Amino acid sequence: MHVTFLEAGHAASAAGWRAATAACGIKYADRDDLALLVSDRPAAAAAVFTTNRVKAAPVLYDMALLGRNAGGVQAVVINAGNANACTGSDGDAAALAMARATEAALGLPADSAFVMSTGTIGVPMPVAKILAGIRVAAGRLAAANGPAAARAIMTTDTRPKHVAAQVSLPGGATIVIGGMAKGAGMIHPNMATLLSVVTSDAALPPALLDAALREAVAGSFNSISIDGDTSTNDTLLVLANGAASAPPISDPADPAYAAFVAGLTAVCRQLAHAVVRDGEGATRFVTITVRGAMSDAEAKLAAMAVARSPLVKTALYGADPNWGRVLCAIGYSGAEVDPARVVLHFGGMRVLEGGLPLPFDERAASDLLNVPEVTIEADLGLGTGEATVWTCDLSPAYVAINAEYRT
Amino acid sequence: MHVTFLEAGHAASAAGWRAATAACGIKYADRDDLALLVSDRPAAAAAVFTTNRVKAAPVLYDMALLGRNAGGVQAVVINAGNANACTGSDGDAAALAMARATEAALGLPADSAFVMSTGTIGVPMPVAKILAGIRVAAGRLAAANGPAAARAIMTTDTRPKHVAAQVSLPGGATIVIGGMAKGAGMIHPNMATLLSVVTSDAALPPALLDAALREAVAGSFNSISIDGDTSTNDTLLVLANGAASAPPISDPADPAYAAFVAGLTAVCRQLAHAVVRDGEGATRFVTITVRGAMSDAEAKLAAMAVARSPLVKTALYGADPNWGRVLCAIGYSGAEVDPARVVLHFGGMRVLEGGLPLPFDERAASDLLNVPEVTIEADLGLGTGEATVWTCDLSPAYVAINAEYRT
Repeated sequence: MHVTFLEAGHAASAAGWRAATAACGIKYADRDDLALLVSDRPAAAAAVFTTNRVKAAPVLYDMALLGRNAGGVQAVVINAGNANACTGSDGDAAALAMARATEAALGLPADSAFVMSTGTIGVPMPVAKILAGIRVAAGRLAAANGPAAARAIMTTDTRPKHVAAQVSLPGGATIVIGGMAKGAGMIHPNMATLLSVVTSDAALPPALLDAALREAVAGSFNSISIDGDTSTNDTLLVLANGAASAPPISDPADPAYAAFVAGLTAVCRQLAHAVVRDGEGATRFVTITVRGAMSDAEAKLAAMAVARSPLVKTALYGADPNWGRVLCAIGYSGAEVDPARVVLHFGGMRVLEGGLPLPFDERAASDLLNVPEVTIEADLGLGTGEATVWTCDLSPAYVAINAEYRT
Repeated sequence: MHVTFLEAGHAASAAGWRAATAACGIKYADRDDLALLVSDRPAAAAAVFTTNRVKAAPVLYDMALLGRNAGGVQAVVINAGNANACTGSDGDAAALAMARATEAALGLPADSAFVMSTGTIGVPMPVAKILAGIRVAAGRLAAANGPAAARAIMTTDTRPKHVAAQVSLPGGATIVIGGMAKGAGMIHPNMATLLSVVTSDAALPPALLDAALREAVAGSFNSISIDGDTSTNDTLLVLANGAASAPPISDPADPAYAAFVAGLTAVCRQLAHAVVRDGEGATRFVTITVRGAMSDAEAKLAAMAVARSPLVKTALYGADPNWGRVLCAIGYSGAEVDPARVVLHFGGMRVLEGGLPLPFDERAASDLLNVPEVTIEADLGLGTGEATVWTCDLSPAYVAINAEYRT
């Protein structure tokens, strides 16, 4: 099976999808802050939502909508600048109004539109401004607006995040999977740790799409950490409208399903990596692999403990080959560890073996780490469990951004 | 029962205790880096150790010693500058050599001395230098050296941490409990999150001392967080030599036991607060209280999630009354939460009620937070569970310190 990334692909790259943006003036001046994604036909939907007990109004709205109509959604409306969280019953009404206005502007039946919001918590939604923006955007739909939609949903992001891939199915047909995401801060799994919409022209029933999403998210969005915070609004939504000429996929044993999962995983992973690369204040992209754990789950526990450790992350910022902090984080992760069996590599250089540091050139090791892409590999020497996660370093800029920005 | 803090009290304030320091040149120039605490008679011992699976050699040594001789210890030797962690069998030999050298220099039998080390991980111990220092220190023992001992064990600490309290027992007798700690980074509970030694002239059997320690630590060292990292070396040791004229405490139902626990808790809490106040880069001391949770355990989960959140801690640095991040952290803590029942206070000002922000003067609220001592109070409105924890803010200086310092 082949997954080929499209040049400058985006959330409207798949057949039957269009996007549009508008400037509502919710919080930011002189920029679009509203995006629409619209399918020309009903699409199957699946989603993962924040596990936070405090859920924003649009999250609650989408969870309910998914229960009512996972097979016939056609639109997503997203605003930046206001998270519509901790806004009480007015917030619930605002989310509903956004959905209804989107449906009306597009001539769609009720319960056809998902709603996403990101930005400040606890500020009443400027509903009239947003509804006006929805009406403007509805008149501007075009497939070429996918990248603009990714820009419109940014908050502290410094660059838009969008990608698309073509997937060759075993029978010879092709489908496209595209998506966009916004992230930057409050990024930590269990799920969904940011806003992301993935669209496809594949045809799958909602239950199978949901299964594919859960497979894809484990190795992508649920394997990244920026600061360990899980926000109130995080949502990852996948929509498949069947507009491609490829035959429908209805059997998890169908090789085409595996191909779809591979493509969806690749797109989600690319988006997740883009979120990490644009982590607040990030100067390095860090890939952490743990092998030889008692199980894959323990490997992930250990890798995520390393990814979360402020001491590891500040050392990475300083290009300090501080293997002691990595070993320490693995030690408190909860995974089974025998220090005498651990082998650690920093940037490909072996620095620890049998629980003991190897003599290495500190300057050379620091040079290996003083690059934009860094790897940390740990082999626990106990079993066959393995996991890879991604994070970024912790820089003074992270503190500066979050000491000033009102989430 | 009365607990009275002594002015400039320290780890040798209790009867029968003396301290000494020496400069071994382990890592730092021109300062003492070794401390001895010695009792004039055998003392009962209890301890809590790091839960990290990667334990430093002195931790493993002390755990074994506690099993062999919890009733007859007389000395503690502590060095700064080298953690003796990830040092293999040479490290085990170094810890043993430190204990034996201490015992020999003091004329004590084998298994009379605990060993503690703090500093860089993975560097061989300069054993000869340390043993020479132990011999020098053994000739300098004096009760007045307690504060110097607290200085000698500092690493990135900016000030020594020592305290002592006099406890009036119900029968009229008094005992003294004193202690010292070093901390600063890698501070997070489950236990013991730093090096601390507490000494007393009370008389308790080891099992009762252990029970008292576990009560005291829950509301002190296990209720603080600086960066969420749990180090390889953390140890809290309590020694009671019975040198006071107070009658021995042997029954947990004896009111004198409750008085001892109150005194021990007060001393441990004071030391824990001193560690937080001296947190790496800290500019504010933050008290977080959660009430109205389903249980005390859930209240602590919620409070610790707030204390750990980098987003909350950076907002506190910026004096930003960002109640959204606090509510968000409570939401993902795992504690039962109904946002519609939550009431939040920042610096005594009510900012959120019924899940909705109250109108408040942002400038006034920021002024309330722009002080060295800040309080955050959350009432979940669900039950009677309550917990208080302490943390500090996250400043750019934390990042700068940890990007440079090799743990």
